[in-house]
Amino acid sequence: MSKISNVLAERYASGAMKDIWSGEGRVIIERDLWIAVMKAQKELGIDVPDGVIEAYEAVKGQIDLASIDARERITKHDVKARIEEFCDLAGHEHIHKGMTSRDLTENVEQLQMVRALQLVRSKAVTALVRLSEKATEYADQIITARTHNVAAQPTTLGKRIAMFGQELLLGIEHLDRVIENYAVRGIKGAVGTQIDQLTLFSGNTDKVAQLENSIVKYLGIASSINAVGQVYPRSLDFEVVSALYTLTSGPSSFCKTLRIMAGNETASEGFAKGQVGSSAMPHKMNSRSCERVNGFHVILNGYMNMVAGLAGDQWNEGDVSCSVVRRVALPDSFFAVDGLFETFLTILDQMETFPAVIERENSHYFPFLSTTTIMMEAVKKGAGRELAHESIKEHAVATVRDLRHGKVTRNDLLDRLAADSRLGLTMEELEAIIARGQELVGSAKAQVKIFADQVNGWSARFPEAKAYVPGSIL
Amino acid sequence: MSKISNVLAERYASGAMKDIWSGEGRVIIERDLWIAVMKAQKELGIDVPDGVIEAYEAVKGQIDLASIDARERITKHDVKARIEEFCDLAGHEHIHKGMTSRDLTENVEQLQMVRALQLVRSKAVTALVRLSEKATEYADQIITARTHNVAAQPTTLGKRIAMFGQELLLGIEHLDRVIENYAVRGIKGAVGTQIDQLTLFSGNTDKVAQLENSIVKYLGIASSINAVGQVYPRSLDFEVVSALYTLTSGPSSFCKTLRIMAGNETASEGFAKGQVGSSAMPHKMNSRSCERVNGFHVILNGYMNMVAGLAGDQWNEGDVSCSVVRRVALPDSFFAVDGLFETFLTILDQMETFPAVIERENSHYFPFLSTTTIMMEAVKKGAGRELAHESIKEHAVATVRDLRHGKVTRNDLLDRLAADSRLGLTMEELEAIIARGQELVGSAKAQVKIFADQVNGWSARFPEAKAYVPGSIL
Amino acid sequence: MSKISNVLAERYASGAMKDIWSGEGRVIIERDLWIAVMKAQKELGIDVPDGVIEAYEAVKGQIDLASIDARERITKHDVKARIEEFCDLAGHEHIHKGMTSRDLTENVEQLQMVRALQLVRSKAVTALVRLSEKATEYADQIITARTHNVAAQPTTLGKRIAMFGQELLLGIEHLDRVIENYAVRGIKGAVGTQIDQLTLFSGNTDKVAQLENSIVKYLGIASSINAVGQVYPRSLDFEVVSALYTLTSGPSSFCKTLRIMAGNETASEGFAKGQVGSSAMPHKMNSRSCERVNGFHVILNGYMNMVAGLAGDQWNEGDVSCSVVRRVALPDSFFAVDGLFETFLTILDQMETFPAVIERENSHYFPFLSTTTIMMEAVKKGAGRELAHESIKEHAVATVRDLRHGKVTRNDLLDRLAADSRLGLTMEELEAIIARGQELVGSAKAQVKIFADQVNGWSARFPEAKAYVPGSIL
Amino acid sequence: MSKISNVLAERYASGAMKDIWSGEGRVIIERDLWIAVMKAQKELGIDVPDGVIEAYEAVKGQIDLASIDARERITKHDVKARIEEFCDLAGHEHIHKGMTSRDLTENVEQLQMVRALQLVRSKAVTALVRLSEKATEYADQIITARTHNVAAQPTTLGKRIAMFGQELLLGIEHLDRVIENYAVRGIKGAVGTQIDQLTLFSGNTDKVAQLENSIVKYLGIASSINAVGQVYPRSLDFEVVSALYTLTSGPSSFCKTLRIMAGNETASEGFAKGQVGSSAMPHKMNSRSCERVNGFHVILNGYMNMVAGLAGDQWNEGDVSCSVVRRVALPDSFFAVDGLFETFLTILDQMETFPAVIERENSHYFPFLSTTTIMMEAVKKGAGRELAHESIKEHAVATVRDLRHGKVTRNDLLDRLAADSRLGLTMEELEAIIARGQELVGSAKAQVKIFADQVNGWSARFPEAKAYVPGSIL
Repeated sequence: MSKISNVLAERYASGAMKDIWSGEGRVIIERDLWIAVMKAQKELGIDVPDGVIEAYEAVKGQIDLASIDARERITKHDVKARIEEFCDLAGHEHIHKGMTSRDLTENVEQLQMVRALQLVRSKAVTALVRLSEKATEYADQIITARTHNVAAQPTTLGKRIAMFGQELLLGIEHLDRVIENYAVRGIKGAVGTQIDQLTLFSGNTDKVAQLENSIVKYLGIASSINAVGQVYPRSLDFEVVSALYTLTSGPSSFCKTLRIMAGNETASEGFAKGQVGSSAMPHKMNSRSCERVNGFHVILNGYMNMVAGLAGDQWNEGDVSCSVVRRVALPDSFFAVDGLFETFLTILDQMETFPAVIERENSHYFPFLSTTTIMMEAVKKGAGRELAHESIKEHAVATVRDLRHGKVTRNDLLDRLAADSRLGLTMEELEAIIARGQELVGSAKAQVKIFADQVNGWSARFPEAKAYVPGSIL
Repeated sequence: MSKISNVLAERYASGAMKDIWSGEGRVIIERDLWIAVMKAQKELGIDVPDGVIEAYEAVKGQIDLASIDARERITKHDVKARIEEFCDLAGHEHIHKGMTSRDLTENVEQLQMVRALQLVRSKAVTALVRLSEKATEYADQIITARTHNVAAQPTTLGKRIAMFGQELLLGIEHLDRVIENYAVRGIKGAVGTQIDQLTLFSGNTDKVAQLENSIVKYLGIASSINAVGQVYPRSLDFEVVSALYTLTSGPSSFCKTLRIMAGNETASEGFAKGQVGSSAMPHKMNSRSCERVNGFHVILNGYMNMVAGLAGDQWNEGDVSCSVVRRVALPDSFFAVDGLFETFLTILDQMETFPAVIERENSHYFPFLSTTTIMMEAVKKGAGRELAHESIKEHAVATVRDLRHGKVTRNDLLDRLAADSRLGLTMEELEAIIARGQELVGSAKAQVKIFADQVNGWSARFPEAKAYVPGSIL
Repeated sequence: MSKISNVLAERYASGAMKDIWSGEGRVIIERDLWIAVMKAQKELGIDVPDGVIEAYEAVKGQIDLASIDARERITKHDVKARIEEFCDLAGHEHIHKGMTSRDLTENVEQLQMVRALQLVRSKAVTALVRLSEKATEYADQIITARTHNVAAQPTTLGKRIAMFGQELLLGIEHLDRVIENYAVRGIKGAVGTQIDQLTLFSGNTDKVAQLENSIVKYLGIASSINAVGQVYPRSLDFEVVSALYTLTSGPSSFCKTLRIMAGNETASEGFAKGQVGSSAMPHKMNSRSCERVNGFHVILNGYMNMVAGLAGDQWNEGDVSCSVVRRVALPDSFFAVDGLFETFLTILDQMETFPAVIERENSHYFPFLSTTTIMMEAVKKGAGRELAHESIKEHAVATVRDLRHGKVTRNDLLDRLAADSRLGLTMEELEAIIARGQELVGSAKAQVKIFADQVNGWSARFPEAKAYVPGSIL
Repeated sequence: MSKISNVLAERYASGAMKDIWSGEGRVIIERDLWIAVMKAQKELGIDVPDGVIEAYEAVKGQIDLASIDARERITKHDVKARIEEFCDLAGHEHIHKGMTSRDLTENVEQLQMVRALQLVRSKAVTALVRLSEKATEYADQIITARTHNVAAQPTTLGKRIAMFGQELLLGIEHLDRVIENYAVRGIKGAVGTQIDQLTLFSGNTDKVAQLENSIVKYLGIASSINAVGQVYPRSLDFEVVSALYTLTSGPSSFCKTLRIMAGNETASEGFAKGQVGSSAMPHKMNSRSCERVNGFHVILNGYMNMVAGLAGDQWNEGDVSCSVVRRVALPDSFFAVDGLFETFLTILDQMETFPAVIERENSHYFPFLSTTTIMMEAVKKGAGRELAHESIKEHAVATVRDLRHGKVTRNDLLDRLAADSRLGLTMEELEAIIARGQELVGSAKAQVKIFADQVNGWSARFPEAKAYVPGSIL
């Protein structure tokens, strides 16, 4: 029977994300940690002869999972097997001094998360840049804003895009704060008392404290957590996964809206280059990628639920029944969020808008959306307020009814109003109002501009993001 | 039939939290918003005669819900009724200029949340201070650390408390960042284009931008969100409620551990002053308050699930089907978190520890926990490493087996080891090792000290927190 | 400050549902339980003089919560206070024999749930009947079926409604099985050993077993659970709330679809009689009630999450930290599901469909949906298969493109095909195909008929359901 | 880089479960479906020459995923590739008549679920049998029942086990009803109108109806769903996964209790044969498998959350954005529940109890648990009720206090009572009461017997279950 693969990783995630969570990726990060500890220990006087660290660094990238497995079958101990492998490659035995298994696993998993978070942040900035470009491109394209899914007021398509971009931006700011304040457990021993490092340093508490500071510096992490038990607090995992959920809410809303717009034919997620609809149904541009983004968001909610089930359930120094849960939920959350952004970036690259259909929709709704202005103008020209109001309401309600029941096939509200002497407005005057009405998008364009400026700041901070091109999706 | 009350509010939450979410509390915040808008509009040239703002401020606190209800029965419009009431009280008509209903409701709900968040932060700091005091009090009390709920290594009770306190501290730092970066929707009109304020300011985009800045300054909020639709992004609600969940994970773990300790009689949540167990069962000190804290944590997870169901589901400019959900989940989340901290603070005030039982437990486990040291000493005194290892393992396994099967009633491992010539250690030597073993708590005390220093920083920033005393709980 | 009321109960739930969960409702059910136990005990020989049960039954409905509260302030014990009140009213002291507090509270809460479930089942059947009526009414109304929210094939509006009705029907069948197999905890004492009833019956195990059977018979419940601890398994609460979630998924999907249809103006949830849109926006029929139904579904998910957090977390004979959670999640789940059905029934009564708009949509899409048939006919008339295919695809793609980019304003695919000699079909022939195409709805009508027959079975079983009329909603 | 495998499948699930969800397993079930459809079509007159079905059946098991992949690279269509492969193997082209892709995928996934559900039911019955055996084995072992995690009343260990078994039994009954009432979508075409089968049967609606009945009969399924769209209702997936959650709540509670018992050393999950604790910590029998069971329960909650996110979110005939979610959540739910039962069965096989420790605990608590009886006896012997009550309470409280504060090291309540003239009971009389007290376990044994009888019914229905032996776990 064929092996069952991780569908989120193998079908949707990018190579860069898989690298972090693969067997090889884990070994690399583990070796980074060992090296950081060695450097810090050497600085503080532990005997690590010159050249040793360099020897380990030189072979860090030589990863042979089969060899490690073979060792594990003999030693019956996974950590020992990986220690032996690395030491044999380097020709020294200086790693893992005063460290327990948890010192390794906890910190390694945290480092995997930090690197995965940084990758996600970068892709999210890419999406932000694309949204900003689209928003700017359509800053002037008037569209009928909808609330409760029905026509409400004019806005611009650019503003609509900027609105979802703004939510993504809030999510990025939140994620960024999580990353920049992330703390690792550090080298604390089996129950968190640092007893083994203290023994190594002959009871010198100051040196043990300096050791931790030095290690996190080498790892590029903000800090380590002072008082922990066997494990770091699982609410930290929740903080991470919930930040991914927050982050992807803007893209999810954007995609839901695009699915609705596709139903009205005002926009579409488009086809990949070369892709066509079936010959039988060439009209059928299914929003499959948008649905997938929404699906990933649902998936993230589920993984978040898993890690939420661990937070606040620590017994004593560390019985948290979390091992199997974290083994599933942590990598899979990151594969899901990575797949989400790969898909979302593809949508942003391929999406189409149909201004002709948008304009038809505008024409259909604008007479209704302009009745307030029409009344003001009628009063200005001398109509009685009450009469004008009565006239407009009467005609508007009748027009809606006639349109819906097929008595008329286009919105003829203006004709009706022009024909009603209570208002005293000519067709020309009414059409002039509508024409102005199309400009009644308020600060929409200004908001797009401000959004674009905010995005530029992030783009400058992460210059690699702008150039990123998603892989091709299924 | 009697009215059905909100059980979280009426049974568990404090008066201060109910004040924020009550009918009256909402009216006060709404009036704060109107006044802030008026001030900002006046600054920017809108006609608000001198003395008007003062007149509104003077009557701000006069809240008569019955009168507002009576007005609503006539106007059939809740916002109008509240405008009229406030204006009649003040004797002016200058509020709500260029504002729509959403401008009111969105910002008012956000302000309620900010004030509720600040209240929660303050109580969380109180809990932090109490944990720090307890940790310091028990910094030297050696206790058997447990992983997987079984004895693992020595630590101190103070360190155990500091460990949960440290998780709370991480949660407070996270919550604090959420509060300090919180942005309100601002006065953006029905679909977010600011069309009404623009009209009020004759199309002056700059003034409209300044208006927002000025309003948030008056409200004491970080900023407003640039591009929004009818509503602010619902992922912001999720960010808030998930921060409450993170925050309460430390207290939840603490309480779970205290429930387990109560089962071992090493500690207890205690009784309220004057409270006693039933006469039939005086031994029965139920951890009801700890269970309640864990229950609130489960409740918060449920409300978080509700707001997660809204994030990423915005259609167009604002169809998010969220009204009924937010009406339930937002206030009830805050009532739950408030009830949690009231209960948690009560536990911290009343909890008891039983050092005699803790010491009995230590005596029972320390011979096992000291076997590594015993072997080292035996080798030092000339025993063969392999023989010593074999001896210790043999006796340790036998002792465990005999204890569990009732062959012995106290841990007699030391007797067995003293009698085994393979080790060559006398009973005196073994007892000396155990005595030292009791000091093998590593950096436990140093970590308590560092934790206490960190807490002092927060206590200094929120000086009111230290003095807070929870209300009496049911 | 005004009391904070339960918004789900007071704003959305029906009187019948509030009755079950109110203070008074709970007292009534508690008294029902006491009476059932007395009857069973009397049957089995416990001394309950003739006339005593009748005396209790006579005063069962006299509920004075204030009096009970007054007693509780004296006794400091809520159960005692309620026992005294009932006994004083009846003039006897024969209730609660051999019962502990948990015997009361567990069974009472379960009985509240059963009665609430029965109420929900009845309303769900009402909704089913209304869906069946609507489905039958529109069984022949052809509509463009959509998958991925874009046009796919013809179906009928009645079939679409029946489809959601069928999901509701599956949910009712599931709920019905939960109700019909529901088991109560029974009178099992403080830790489930029935020690108190055994003492009462002088150790007669058979009689104690008979007692339980007799009690559940009097209560109208399927059975009691044999081996329990202090509490019944909390997975039973999860089974109940998850059944409510399943049940409401059909209505939720219906409402989501109606919101989308409202955006296309093919249908609307309508207005309450007398209600009108604002005069400024008479076109704006917001799907507020549909959104509310979707909101209630999200709320139910949250409460389900809470009870899921209790299931599988029982410690020993009953430490489940569930008290506060169940106090919130159980009644509130039922208020939410009740509010959902009240709202949904209102929608079904008021919804409107717009056949003229539906037909316009059909006309727009049917040429595309008929291309398979057109090709078959062309080949039948002698066209080459490849040429025909090529011709159709070419024109279909071009038509879509021209429609979307405003080059044409109506679907002119037939004109293009008629003009293409490769196909050899005249306009008359093409129009004849389209006309037939409108009948290509397969078994849609037959399925509506089968659905209606299934519904009739349920309607016959619950005859009160058909006549139920929802209360007026906010 | 190495491929990332599905950790739930490859690390925890059994071969039988992987078979169902593997690439090969899916192909087998797909071929079963094709054959069932062919048989039904042949019966109803569609031309399927004799021998054809046999030819397909003969090659059904020849699965070559590489060959299918190779075909897909050419056809660019996965379903076509699998059709071709099967037809080439059989030497005929009679499958998939009048079927669309969704006819295949929806039903195949449902069949995978049914078979997986049946496998789970069988393993759950195995667990039930083991629990019944354990409960019977320990039916007479008195143990201190705990509520709120502190001593409450005597019960028996067998009863405690039966209690969790009873919860599992409720879960099995629920699961069984889900399986026995499960309905598949059936062959309904692209939007559910059966248009293609109707065309195949020349519009004969009756035959199309018979076809479905016949297919489900061949597949061994209860029924098919009458009115569906492109997809079957996703609330059905939720019904399935939530039934798995209900099912596993009993095992989860059992394991949580065993973790707590391990902390008190009254029981342990044991070691696998040959496994030993580390030599340094031979006392340390970590409840890793129990924690894993609890972890799987948390995982199931997360997947349930995912499928809950799909239910009630169907747009029109089938836009449910569910594809990626179901691809993850459905198989992974089953891998998790399978891993849970494999682990749970291992625990039940290896767990140990320590009667000597249990008895020590009983001795410690029984004097307290017997105070009610002591008072009754004192009064019977002539003591004043009030005085007796006062005496007992006084001594009990003092004893608890002295035990906890180290003034006494064993429960000497009886000595104190014997010395108090207010009671008038001798030490012999008191000890006689305690001795009887140990029998005060009420119906505990009778309940174990009833439970065992109930289990026998299930064991008889699924005879293979009793003999099942779990695979060895990591």
